[in-house]
Amino acid sequence: MKALILAGGRGTRLWPISRNSFPKQFQKIASDKTLLEELVERISGIEYFVSTNMEFKLLVKDILGIEDERIIVEPAFKNTAPAVAYAMQYLVEREFVDEDEAVVVLPSDHYVKERDRFMEYLRTAEKISEKHIVTFGIKPRKPETGYGYIKPGRKVRLNGVEVKCVECFVEKPDEDTAKWLIESGAFWNSGIFMFTPKIFFRELKECCPEIYGKLRECFHETWKCFTDMPDISIDYAVIERSRNVVCLPMDISWSDLGSWDSLYEVVEKDESGNFVKGNVFSMDSRNCLIYSQDGRLVCVVGVKDLVVVESEDVALILKRGMGQKVKELVDQLRAMKRREVLEHVVEYRPWGYYKSLLHGDRYKIKKIVVYPSAKLSYQMHYHRSEHWVVVRGTAKVVINGKEHVVREGESIFVPKAALHRLENPGKIDLEIVEIQQGEYLHEDDIIRVEDEYGRAEKGFKSMPSPNGNGAETVRLKPRSRSAKMESMKEDAGSLRLG
Amino acid sequence: MKALILAGGRGTRLWPISRNSFPKQFQKIASDKTLLEELVERISGIEYFVSTNMEFKLLVKDILGIEDERIIVEPAFKNTAPAVAYAMQYLVEREFVDEDEAVVVLPSDHYVKERDRFMEYLRTAEKISEKHIVTFGIKPRKPETGYGYIKPGRKVRLNGVEVKCVECFVEKPDEDTAKWLIESGAFWNSGIFMFTPKIFFRELKECCPEIYGKLRECFHETWKCFTDMPDISIDYAVIERSRNVVCLPMDISWSDLGSWDSLYEVVEKDESGNFVKGNVFSMDSRNCLIYSQDGRLVCVVGVKDLVVVESEDVALILKRGMGQKVKELVDQLRAMKRREVLEHVVEYRPWGYYKSLLHGDRYKIKKIVVYPSAKLSYQMHYHRSEHWVVVRGTAKVVINGKEHVVREGESIFVPKAALHRLENPGKIDLEIVEIQQGEYLHEDDIIRVEDEYGRAEKGFKSMPSPNGNGAETVRLKPRSRSAKMESMKEDAGSLRLG
Repeated sequence: MKALILAGGRGTRLWPISRNSFPKQFQKIASDKTLLEELVERISGIEYFVSTNMEFKLLVKDILGIEDERIIVEPAFKNTAPAVAYAMQYLVEREFVDEDEAVVVLPSDHYVKERDRFMEYLRTAEKISEKHIVTFGIKPRKPETGYGYIKPGRKVRLNGVEVKCVECFVEKPDEDTAKWLIESGAFWNSGIFMFTPKIFFRELKECCPEIYGKLRECFHETWKCFTDMPDISIDYAVIERSRNVVCLPMDISWSDLGSWDSLYEVVEKDESGNFVKGNVFSMDSRNCLIYSQDGRLVCVVGVKDLVVVESEDVALILKRGMGQKVKELVDQLRAMKRREVLEHVVEYRPWGYYKSLLHGDRYKIKKIVVYPSAKLSYQMHYHRSEHWVVVRGTAKVVINGKEHVVREGESIFVPKAALHRLENPGKIDLEIVEIQQGEYLHEDDIIRVEDEYGRAEKGFKSMPSPNGNGAETVRLKPRSRSAKMESMKEDAGSLRLG
Repeated sequence: MKALILAGGRGTRLWPISRNSFPKQFQKIASDKTLLEELVERISGIEYFVSTNMEFKLLVKDILGIEDERIIVEPAFKNTAPAVAYAMQYLVEREFVDEDEAVVVLPSDHYVKERDRFMEYLRTAEKISEKHIVTFGIKPRKPETGYGYIKPGRKVRLNGVEVKCVECFVEKPDEDTAKWLIESGAFWNSGIFMFTPKIFFRELKECCPEIYGKLRECFHETWKCFTDMPDISIDYAVIERSRNVVCLPMDISWSDLGSWDSLYEVVEKDESGNFVKGNVFSMDSRNCLIYSQDGRLVCVVGVKDLVVVESEDVALILKRGMGQKVKELVDQLRAMKRREVLEHVVEYRPWGYYKSLLHGDRYKIKKIVVYPSAKLSYQMHYHRSEHWVVVRGTAKVVINGKEHVVREGESIFVPKAALHRLENPGKIDLEIVEIQQGEYLHEDDIIRVEDEYGRAEKGFKSMPSPNGNGAETVRLKPRSRSAKMESMKEDAGSLRLG
């Protein structure tokens, strides 16, 4: 059995912790590990692959420390059906998976309490995956309206395992329907599936020929057709349409962490009914979820049934039970174009990350971390100068083709309109404090002449530098907007910081 | 009439906004102005003087922009009786007040809604202050247990003004007593008094000869005796003992802002019963006080009857009605030696202020603001170097006796163990970003050889520097602890940052 982990989602239902730029699978929600790490621990012993998008590739690599070939980068932002089809094609083509080997597909942002029992269920499912798509139904704890349901049909015994046929799938029902579903023996749909490549492609061909056709059309170059595939979920495309699906009931403590309420339900509470994480001091308070993410001291006094979540730039105080309102809140804030719903104070890039410390009137202060051997693009700004103070590690800085080594405790000045590149030649993270100054400090004041791999950007030609260390460049023509957009796609990482 | 404003208090009942190092009179609590500014506006037209302690002198000057001679600096931390006696002596000696002129004594951290009516009451009180100490009783809105009460005796007519004799003063009663007091016509004690110097000193002599005696003993050098004066309140020392006190009832909306609850009661609420200040987004929430002090977005969803206060480093979520618990909370945190109860992220100094931005492993980042013409002490650190980047204004920096001018956009490096001084020679605030680096970054790694006035510290002798610009110093002997303590008193301002 192999595992395919889906980690390309960009949910905001656990906002302000989970955001588009740093969604919850990469966050430490319920413990000191990210949900992605928790999942990997839960399935230890099974070789896994992670399907994600280009924006999160380095984040996945940073968190799990796995080889590039085990991270499957979706060629575009798409729903789960194209993503799973693309990944399955990749696994088969690269011979990571045999045609008859079971592959379990796992969302990376769920919570499961019982690790060993979960593994037992996977091993059980493996026995019946030869001829069926196996879905995993969770025994419901209450008539939850935020989940999908699997309404089972008759019992069958396959290979010694008792499973249910599937009568139908029901998407988020109202409460009365949910109650009726539970009475009639329905399960929560965990969103976890298992199948062999043979079964998967057969069912895909039958249930969703649009995707299957594209896969065949561009065999060996699937990415070419990826953007043309219909943007639908794997549930809708295959699972709900296939006549070959069975349901294995699981009696475990599970949550899709679709709201702060559902997180509260599954985590271990203290004797006052509180779940507390981070720098929190609680007095006379009961049945609260209190999470201080960024070190700020959160004090609660005399309150009950609250969710209090503090991130670097946002505090959310929510009545427990109203977790579904967070979506509405985020939508409203998005309509107001509030930065807090889209970005994090920490921004991840392929070469490392940075954190905004202070936005002054005519200056900005950032802490920048560059991974060992990583470098930023060769670039310049018309309207701002930059002071870099190295506070950890050693930096290699090229300014107008001249190379400088800047050690811990030293600083360097990058004047306006100077071509420059920052690089970490060392073996430990490079940390620098950047002070930007100028009359215009927006991120679009950047001319990128080479990307972080040293390749010339469109419209520029690389030339050997006078001292042979850097690369002088000559601008051939102004970049058009479309050329710029293309280079943004190639180098999404350095868009903001440069 | 003159006004004497008492601004030396260090309350923490509005924690986390109000702290010992930056108490509520200097904070923007109910509007965009500090409570001190609001008071000064309220009494506009009356010449005022501010009594405070050395720690807050520059803060008062910074906020109000008044001449030094109008700020009366108490020689030590003492209760209000010595402070008022000292200030009255100062006002008379310096001939700011005539012996028969009314002086109104006003706490600086109270809230009053009706500005014009307040002034009318003061003008009315002035008419009867020739022969009496006038106290101001507030018509109670409810049986508040957090206030003192004035139980009035019979009515009298003085100079055409109807006032009450005072039967007795009652300190914070229980609720039943408070109800009974209100039924019997008692008032809240506003803590505001009016008297002429002649009456004040006569009553002080009679009611508190210990303080009066000290005043006489050291006539013209009152500060010498200040520390020997009993550490008691003006209420206890004079007002409650004097037989010459009358009460002028005031029917105004007043609060001593002794808790978040009392603030909520007096401020203007929106149609949902919320009082909101700062970057706040509220959904389906009622009867809350929500205050975001530092720009962080605070979202409340579906909650009611809460106090939510967000400062730079603390979030307080408190059930409304439990405001008195804040004291207990602060006491508990203090016992745990939590920095958050004592200091602010912003620290004020005589020469300006600084804000901590990031505490790294082996580095610290601060934003430092130096007022025009102000300078820091001449100092050095054994264990840390400092990078200074000027982001606004122009700095004069002396390093080992050599002077450098550092302009906006430029930086300078101060090596370990180098004597250095930072100065703002300009006309606008100087803003610098400081990056401290070293293996030991605590504030006690500082050797101060001259204070910010250029006076040699004990144990050091000033010598002309080689280039005549700075001052080279020679250490004569290690400073003893007591000498150090004394210099701390003289130069409390630069203790932390140096």
